[in-house]
Amino acid sequence: MLTKSSSLMRLVGELKKLPGIGERTALRLAFHLLKSPHNMTALAESLQEVRTRVHACSNCFAVTEDDPCAICTGNRDGGTICVVENSQDLMALERSNAYQGMYHVLEGAISPLGGIGPSDLRIPELLERVGRGGVNEVVIATNFTVEGEATALYLTKALKPYGVKVTRLAHGIPLGSDIEFVDAATVQWALQGRNEL
Amino acid sequence: MLTKSSSLMRLVGELKKLPGIGERTALRLAFHLLKSPHNMTALAESLQEVRTRVHACSNCFAVTEDDPCAICTGNRDGGTICVVENSQDLMALERSNAYQGMYHVLEGAISPLGGIGPSDLRIPELLERVGRGGVNEVVIATNFTVEGEATALYLTKALKPYGVKVTRLAHGIPLGSDIEFVDAATVQWALQGRNEL
Repeated sequence: MLTKSSSLMRLVGELKKLPGIGERTALRLAFHLLKSPHNMTALAESLQEVRTRVHACSNCFAVTEDDPCAICTGNRDGGTICVVENSQDLMALERSNAYQGMYHVLEGAISPLGGIGPSDLRIPELLERVGRGGVNEVVIATNFTVEGEATALYLTKALKPYGVKVTRLAHGIPLGSDIEFVDAATVQWALQGRNEL
Repeated sequence: MLTKSSSLMRLVGELKKLPGIGERTALRLAFHLLKSPHNMTALAESLQEVRTRVHACSNCFAVTEDDPCAICTGNRDGGTICVVENSQDLMALERSNAYQGMYHVLEGAISPLGGIGPSDLRIPELLERVGRGGVNEVVIATNFTVEGEATALYLTKALKPYGVKVTRLAHGIPLGSDIEFVDAATVQWALQGRNEL
């Protein structure tokens, strides 16, 4: 039988550090991996590979293997920069296939309670990019949370001196929603932003 | 940005192979790990370590780092063997602190539909252990599922010629249960097995 200090229990401990994975799930995953040694090796190698290869793009700070990343060097509209909190948000926007410009990843959002100020984020780098010229529009796509909205407000003010157009993703009813169950604030935004057909 | 063939996407693919982890969770875990490179390395090393160190005990087939395992070599009652389907079940029994004998891990249960017969399990090894003598009782602790019950039935018959006492874990109402919500079959077992106070 296994002692508390065994390598399997250490693996359970490492798995437990992952978000949403508790003791029982960690044990189940560890025993599952034990049954498929091939997958265990593949996962370990994959982790090491990500560790050495993946980093932030020096221009837009998206996670990438190449520097600058494929979007910064690609055939995209350099006049528009979409500002997101993290690379996951960037991927969600890319999945929409509705945006052809550049990105800028802030690596977080302003959070006075969490002790995160503008200088802890990639905001100086964004202002520097805009300052270099050639940018017509900055699309602010931070989350619609207290932190995201605070960041959007800060960016709007900070970008004012540069004379670029600053826009924000539209609020409204999500696709496929039953209006009955949409929260009041969202319905209010949707009404205020109503479009003529 | 990341291409489909990037190492991060390969890591997402590996994580998705784990039970109960879909595309979204795998992405979330991958990005979480990306933020803590130390944990990523620790997890990778832990996986490699388990891969090389952990194997089945040659006597009882429990997962172990030493061979024979700590239970087989420990100061335990060698006259009793508790038969379990897998090492997780063994760990659950050990947590109860109510058993001081040996174990035997079958590495599965008989399943005609799944094409798993007695010879695919560690049943020959169990019979050999019992045949060597010194065993008074075999406690069958396979699960109370169709497969587990079929295995228990098979083992009862197979162990008959050896003249050892064969017992089965008690059926009944789980601790902390509201009888109202316990299924009828369990209540029936609990009534039939009622004890005098």
